[in-house]
Amino acid sequence: MPYFDAASSLPLHPVARQALLAALDEGWADPARLHREGRRARLLLDAAREAAAEAVGCRPDELSFTPSGTRALHTGIAGALAGRRRAGRTLVVSAVEHSAVLHAAQAHQADGGTVVEIPVDRAGRVSAETFGAGLRGTGGSGSPGDGTALACLQSANHEVGTEQPVAEVAERCAAAGVPLLVDAAQSLPWGPVPGGWSLLAASAHKWGGPGGVGLLVVRKGVRFAPPPPVDERESGRSPGFADLPAIVAAAASLRAVRAEADAEAVRLRALVDRVRARVPELVPDVEVVGDPVRRLPHLVTFSCLYVDGEALLHALDRAGFSVSSGSSCTSGTLTPSHVLRAMGVLSEGNIRVSLPPGTAGADVDAFLAVLPDVVREVRDRLAAPAASDPQPAGPPPAAPPEPGEAEPEEPREAAGAPSLTVDSLGKRCPVPVIELARVIGRVPVGGTVLLLADDEAARLDVPAWCGMRGHEYLGSDGHAHRVRRLV
Amino acid sequence: MPYFDAASSLPLHPVARQALLAALDEGWADPARLHREGRRARLLLDAAREAAAEAVGCRPDELSFTPSGTRALHTGIAGALAGRRRAGRTLVVSAVEHSAVLHAAQAHQADGGTVVEIPVDRAGRVSAETFGAGLRGTGGSGSPGDGTALACLQSANHEVGTEQPVAEVAERCAAAGVPLLVDAAQSLPWGPVPGGWSLLAASAHKWGGPGGVGLLVVRKGVRFAPPPPVDERESGRSPGFADLPAIVAAAASLRAVRAEADAEAVRLRALVDRVRARVPELVPDVEVVGDPVRRLPHLVTFSCLYVDGEALLHALDRAGFSVSSGSSCTSGTLTPSHVLRAMGVLSEGNIRVSLPPGTAGADVDAFLAVLPDVVREVRDRLAAPAASDPQPAGPPPAAPPEPGEAEPEEPREAAGAPSLTVDSLGKRCPVPVIELARVIGRVPVGGTVLLLADDEAARLDVPAWCGMRGHEYLGSDGHAHRVRRLV
Repeated sequence: MPYFDAASSLPLHPVARQALLAALDEGWADPARLHREGRRARLLLDAAREAAAEAVGCRPDELSFTPSGTRALHTGIAGALAGRRRAGRTLVVSAVEHSAVLHAAQAHQADGGTVVEIPVDRAGRVSAETFGAGLRGTGGSGSPGDGTALACLQSANHEVGTEQPVAEVAERCAAAGVPLLVDAAQSLPWGPVPGGWSLLAASAHKWGGPGGVGLLVVRKGVRFAPPPPVDERESGRSPGFADLPAIVAAAASLRAVRAEADAEAVRLRALVDRVRARVPELVPDVEVVGDPVRRLPHLVTFSCLYVDGEALLHALDRAGFSVSSGSSCTSGTLTPSHVLRAMGVLSEGNIRVSLPPGTAGADVDAFLAVLPDVVREVRDRLAAPAASDPQPAGPPPAAPPEPGEAEPEEPREAAGAPSLTVDSLGKRCPVPVIELARVIGRVPVGGTVLLLADDEAARLDVPAWCGMRGHEYLGSDGHAHRVRRLV
Repeated sequence: MPYFDAASSLPLHPVARQALLAALDEGWADPARLHREGRRARLLLDAAREAAAEAVGCRPDELSFTPSGTRALHTGIAGALAGRRRAGRTLVVSAVEHSAVLHAAQAHQADGGTVVEIPVDRAGRVSAETFGAGLRGTGGSGSPGDGTALACLQSANHEVGTEQPVAEVAERCAAAGVPLLVDAAQSLPWGPVPGGWSLLAASAHKWGGPGGVGLLVVRKGVRFAPPPPVDERESGRSPGFADLPAIVAAAASLRAVRAEADAEAVRLRALVDRVRARVPELVPDVEVVGDPVRRLPHLVTFSCLYVDGEALLHALDRAGFSVSSGSSCTSGTLTPSHVLRAMGVLSEGNIRVSLPPGTAGADVDAFLAVLPDVVREVRDRLAAPAASDPQPAGPPPAAPPEPGEAEPEEPREAAGAPSLTVDSLGKRCPVPVIELARVIGRVPVGGTVLLLADDEAARLDVPAWCGMRGHEYLGSDGHAHRVRRLV
């Protein structure tokens, strides 16, 4: 039964299991104690720290073990902000950071701080130039205390796989005198993070280590004041008695995973390329998202028009494939993934496939074999417009216009082209888009449809649909979205 | 090799190991995911929560798993203080709480809050009456916002084993409308905490579960606002991906330990009674501390005059016994344990013996057999006064006077009795007390010794020595301690 949700969590790596079992007998005592059981535990902890530091590329005394990647991010952000309090209270983050970073940013804002969010392009990538421009240096103009205390950038995105220009951004941060915290949760198993970053966070269960172990690295010389309360453990950066056998297993498996990383990256990259190429051929009305080249080797994400992400997920689960989704209907809050939103891409019918190391090509082929039928069934259940449906009152679909290429709007509006209103209020993704697609043919080319939809996803999916089908999104006023038929 | 530091951490219980191994295969996925691996993990998590809640005596939805007992305390205290912000900003704690509670109290104080510390008697026990008087009710007099937001009391002390009157204190808290948080880390393996507490924290590695698992219970109806940043895990009370196999093992072992608790408590209580009775017979100049009756079954603490705690600890370690110490020389800060300080008892040569379940009587006897020689050797190395030494210029030692029983001070002072000054500045515990004991015989009965000592422990140990040897402690002025020879 293929598990394609590696980016969420991985089964324990055999080396992790072996190390965990070996450490159970020696690693239960308090490493702060002076007796032999304590000293034995301390030796294990020191060895694990050295192994992890070597894999990260830092000094052992720069690395603390935390109870999770999330806690590493929370502590790292709070500690760097507090340590740089005098430089200013501005936190700069990319718009596609992990929710743990964004939650920490919200907490900072609630505490009176300022958060600057750096946008990404449609591939989910920040521009180093834009990121640099978002920093308020502390050495130049502006009053002291007005500067950027910290910048955060992931090494690669967890939902769409896009790699960020960390080294370039680190250079700009260094020039501005701003420390850069890198969330390396997704990329650390594949190799060290390049460039002159200041802080780094990661999570062991993303590389086949146990849950409950994160890494927080704070480079020497970075001002850091860990959020209270603190205790004497882990350089004062992670209070509480840790799970030492899990830490030992985490460090051992990081080394093991790294030893296989280069070869495995090549293999999985080819499998992902296969998915990226074949899915749009096999399934109509699909958008493959994320940077096609500068990406994690093992992860691909696509969205299917007219599909309920949760239904798709369950159908794939029944077919034996475990995947993940950023669609609004699969989240507790009924809002689409903030990553897809920041990219401005389709969110309905969203599927993330992330391959664990060792995934067989045959499993990927099996997935590609079942996917078209699974999507078709979900679409049929929702009575979605068939991809091959001729648009009832128009010519066949044309390529979507490039931004700015659309013909001027005023003349057609002025011509008083007929319009139609569709009430999808109270209906959830993907129904509003399906209802829009069903009626667009009823207005002539140049006519407009007013779609009333209060589902959060509509704000993202209606424009995305327009782009995919070659229509023009005229904007929204509250819950009213205006679409002009172009083809 | 007997390990007598159960109160610090226990080896993995066989049931914990078994449950951990069983859960490794099913418990690695994210329980928040909808696919089968996620659902399987969710089932394990739900079952562990039910088992733990049953052992605690609460509803499953009142219980969150945290990464440690320390984090449970930190979150519990911060969340209750924030939730009760409108009632006031006063936090009431006993003086002998675990450092995790005191660190949280310091953080509250640094944030502008008020902390009231309730003293304990020489046995380390709070009086319910004193505790109740320390609460500032929110229903009665005093302006709103001036009241006590939260009170914290441990169920039993981790250093001396004394049980606290939790149920009585909970009644007084309820009467004052103040929630009570109970740190149950030491007692939970022995049974549920009685009484109407509002919040409870505990730690799995104290009962033979793995490290990295704590419990935080927040009763329904208790106002609680978890400290940000939060995420959707564990009712918003513990962010980050947890170590699910460890949680499963923690819950399973709590049940297993509880099943054996009553019988084991009787057995260990008898062994501890043996230590309590025999140590003062076997070793001269020893003070056994903590409540002799209202105490944890497995824990006993005593302090030896004229002994360096760290040396004693290492000597016992070489003899094969792992114990713990609250002496200043065994702490990183060179201050004696805050618990011993609050009790006002001797801190030098302090040894805590805490027996793991299953400890054999023969191991305790072996400990009692080696202890006298070990203490003697350490004392010899420090050239400590022998217990049987006649005081060179005085009568044999008498029983120490009861407080208030000492004869009036003025007449003797007025008589201009000879005095002597000893300079122990810069010398560490137990040297100042040893130097005091060496010279006391050089002044006649009624004469005084002025001991200059800047070691933190002297403030505690000089008065304690006076009490044990029947002399009078006249007080201190900075680093100058005045002692009158009485016997």
